[in-house]
Amino acid sequence: MKPEPSLPASRDKLLFTPGPLTTSLSVKQAMLHDAGSWHYEFNAVVRQVRKQLLAVAGLSRETGHEAILLQGSGTFGIEAIFATCIPPEGKVVVLANGAYGERMVQILHLARINHVALRAPEDVPNDPVALDRLLAGDPAVTHVAAVHCETTTGILNPINALGQVARRHGRSFIVDAMSTFGAVPIDFESAGIDFLVSSPNKCLEGVPGFSFVIARREALVACEGYARSLSLDVLGQWKNFEKNGQFRFTPPTHAILALSQALRELDQEGGVAARGERYRRNQATLVQGMEALGFATYLEAEVQSYIITSFYCPDDRGFTFEEFYRRLSEAGFIIYPGKISQADLFRIGSIGRLFEPDIKALLGAVSETMKEILPDTVELDA
Amino acid sequence: MKPEPSLPASRDKLLFTPGPLTTSLSVKQAMLHDAGSWHYEFNAVVRQVRKQLLAVAGLSRETGHEAILLQGSGTFGIEAIFATCIPPEGKVVVLANGAYGERMVQILHLARINHVALRAPEDVPNDPVALDRLLAGDPAVTHVAAVHCETTTGILNPINALGQVARRHGRSFIVDAMSTFGAVPIDFESAGIDFLVSSPNKCLEGVPGFSFVIARREALVACEGYARSLSLDVLGQWKNFEKNGQFRFTPPTHAILALSQALRELDQEGGVAARGERYRRNQATLVQGMEALGFATYLEAEVQSYIITSFYCPDDRGFTFEEFYRRLSEAGFIIYPGKISQADLFRIGSIGRLFEPDIKALLGAVSETMKEILPDTVELDA
Repeated sequence: MKPEPSLPASRDKLLFTPGPLTTSLSVKQAMLHDAGSWHYEFNAVVRQVRKQLLAVAGLSRETGHEAILLQGSGTFGIEAIFATCIPPEGKVVVLANGAYGERMVQILHLARINHVALRAPEDVPNDPVALDRLLAGDPAVTHVAAVHCETTTGILNPINALGQVARRHGRSFIVDAMSTFGAVPIDFESAGIDFLVSSPNKCLEGVPGFSFVIARREALVACEGYARSLSLDVLGQWKNFEKNGQFRFTPPTHAILALSQALRELDQEGGVAARGERYRRNQATLVQGMEALGFATYLEAEVQSYIITSFYCPDDRGFTFEEFYRRLSEAGFIIYPGKISQADLFRIGSIGRLFEPDIKALLGAVSETMKEILPDTVELDA
Repeated sequence: MKPEPSLPASRDKLLFTPGPLTTSLSVKQAMLHDAGSWHYEFNAVVRQVRKQLLAVAGLSRETGHEAILLQGSGTFGIEAIFATCIPPEGKVVVLANGAYGERMVQILHLARINHVALRAPEDVPNDPVALDRLLAGDPAVTHVAAVHCETTTGILNPINALGQVARRHGRSFIVDAMSTFGAVPIDFESAGIDFLVSSPNKCLEGVPGFSFVIARREALVACEGYARSLSLDVLGQWKNFEKNGQFRFTPPTHAILALSQALRELDQEGGVAARGERYRRNQATLVQGMEALGFATYLEAEVQSYIITSFYCPDDRGFTFEEFYRRLSEAGFIIYPGKISQADLFRIGSIGRLFEPDIKALLGAVSETMKEILPDTVELDA
C-alpha cells in the first residue's frame, strides 16, 4: 500500500471492507489526469456522470429526478440532505438499527433539528408497522429517514415497505443507500423515495472523495430557503449545476474521473443486476466457506445483505481479532472489525472488484491463519 | 483530459488556474493504490502527513499545534472552523476584499452566527488600522477572519499585521491560507494565528478531495461543545485522530496518498522557500511577457501575489474572453476567467507543477492567439 509509483497496483492487499474498496486498475488509472475544474471538457464529464447515475437508478431528468454530486464522504451527503431539506418546523423520524441510523440522530441533534428515533435491535430489520403507528400518532413528523443496508451488521432494511408507509401518511422519505446503490435494486417509484444518498466508493467501485444525492426534483426545489449550511446545501449545488454545469466549490476532479470510468465498467458488467449477482455469489461462497471453517454468522440469512457479513469471533481464549486481522493482512487480505457492543464480531465485505477466486483465496488464508492461531482446534477445510 | 488509461498524463493541458492544478505524474501515480481506511498502514500515512503539514508550517505538536485533515473542498474547511469554533454568543469580523471573504460572510449568515464584514475595495489590501478601530468599538467580536491571498484578484492581504491587531485586542484569529500555504511564508507565532485552513491542491501540489486545518491545540480544545455540525466538526475529527489515528468518516484515501507523495516532492524541491521562489519567477516571467504583449495587470505590483494574476481584457471589440479561452485551450493551456464585476478581467495562475518554460510556452500561445483574434492589432513579441 506504500505509495511507491513503481509498485504495481495489483499487489495491493485485497479489501474485504464496506469501502473504500478494491477497485480496478483502469478506474485508478483514470485519475492520472489533471482536469481543469472550470473547463468545459471536465463539465461534460460531470454532466455525463450525473446522467449515468440517474440511469443506474432507472431514472432520468425526464422522470423528474436529479443527481447531485457533493464533496465530502457519504456522511457529508446525509448531513447535507438534512441541512438542506428539513424546514425550520420540520421533524424527522430516524429508523435506526445500527451505527448509521444513530449517526443520523447525532447529525440532527447537532443541527438542532427536531427528531425522534424509532429503534430496532441490531439484528432485526426496521419495522414498517411500528413506523405506521408512530406516524399515525405524531403529525409533527415531516420526514422519514432510513438506512438501506446497515453495514454495522450487514442487515438489509425493507425500504420499499417503509417508504410506502411514509407516503401513505404524506411524509417525505430519505434513504441512506450508501452501500447498496449500484448492486441492490431500488425501486424509487414504489418506495416513494424523495432523496437518496450514496457514495461512489461502494457498489459503483469508484474511489472516495464525494457523495451524491438522487432527488425528486420537485421535492428538492421545494426546499428553497431552508439551507442551514453553505457547503452542505444540496439545492444550491444543484442550482449551480443548472446555471453553468459547474461545482460551486473545488470538486475532487480525479475522483470524478474515476467514477466516470467505474460507471463505464458497471455498464460493461451488465449493470445493477449483474453486479448484484456477482456480489451475491461472493457472499454465498464466503458464508459457506466460513461456516465450513467453524464460523457462525450474526444475522439470520433472510435479513442478511450480500454487501457485508458479520461473523462471531471464535469463543476461544487463544483467538484475538487483532492477531487474526494482522495475520490476514500479512497474507494480503484486509477484513473489517465489528461495530456493535452486544456481540464480539468481525466483518467481511463482499463488494468491490472482488471475484469468487478472491473469496476462495481469502478463505484459504483464514483457514491457514486459524491453524496458526489455534493449532489445537480441529477445523474443516473450506 | 478524457480518462483514457492509455493516454500519457503528460499530454494533459497545462492548468494556469488557482487549482486544481497541474501536478507531477508521480503524485498522480501515488493514487494507483487502494488503501484500507481502517488499516494501520494507511493510518501511518495519515499520521506522517499530519506531521509533515505542521513541519511545512514551521510547527510541530511540541509547539502546541495540530494538523487536522477534513473531507470536502477548502470551503468545507472554512465552514468547519466556523461551525466548530465560534461559541453561541460569538461574533466574527470578516475582512473582505473579494469573493472568498464574501463567502465567509455567506457561511456565517446561513449558520446564523453573528458577524460583521469589514470591506476594502478589491484592489486594496485589508486595513489593520480599520480593524483596530472596529475591534476597539465592538467588544462583542470574538474572532477575526482574513483571507491571505484573495484569488478573486490575486491580492495579498497583510495577515501578519491583521493578526497582531487581533491579538492586541485579545480576539482569536482565523486565516484562509488556501492558495498560499506551502509557497508563501507564514509566521504563525508573529501573526498569532489560532486556526489556518488550507488545501492540498494548491501550493502543496496534491490533488483535491479534502482540506486541512492547522490549529493551536489550546484554542481548538477550548471549542468543546460548540459544534453545530457532525461532518464539519474539526474538534471531533481531531479527537478521533487522537483516539485511534483514524478518520471518523470515509477518508479520500487516494487523495491522501497523493498528498503524501506531494509533500515528499515539496521537501525535495527545498521546501516553502524554494517553491515560493519558483512561483515568484513564474509570475514575474508571466507579467513581463504579458505586458510585452500589451496586457495590463489589474493590481499594483506591491499588493500582487505570485499565486495568480488578473489581467484586463483588451479593450477591443474583436476580443472576447470565451474565444481567447477556447483557442488557448486548444493549444493546450487552460487559463481562468475573471471573478469581479467592476472590471473586465481574466486570470492566469502561476502555481502547480509549472516551470518557466511552461510560462514561456503559454506566452507564445497567447501571442499566437492574439494574432489570430485581432490580426489588425500590432503586438510585440514576448
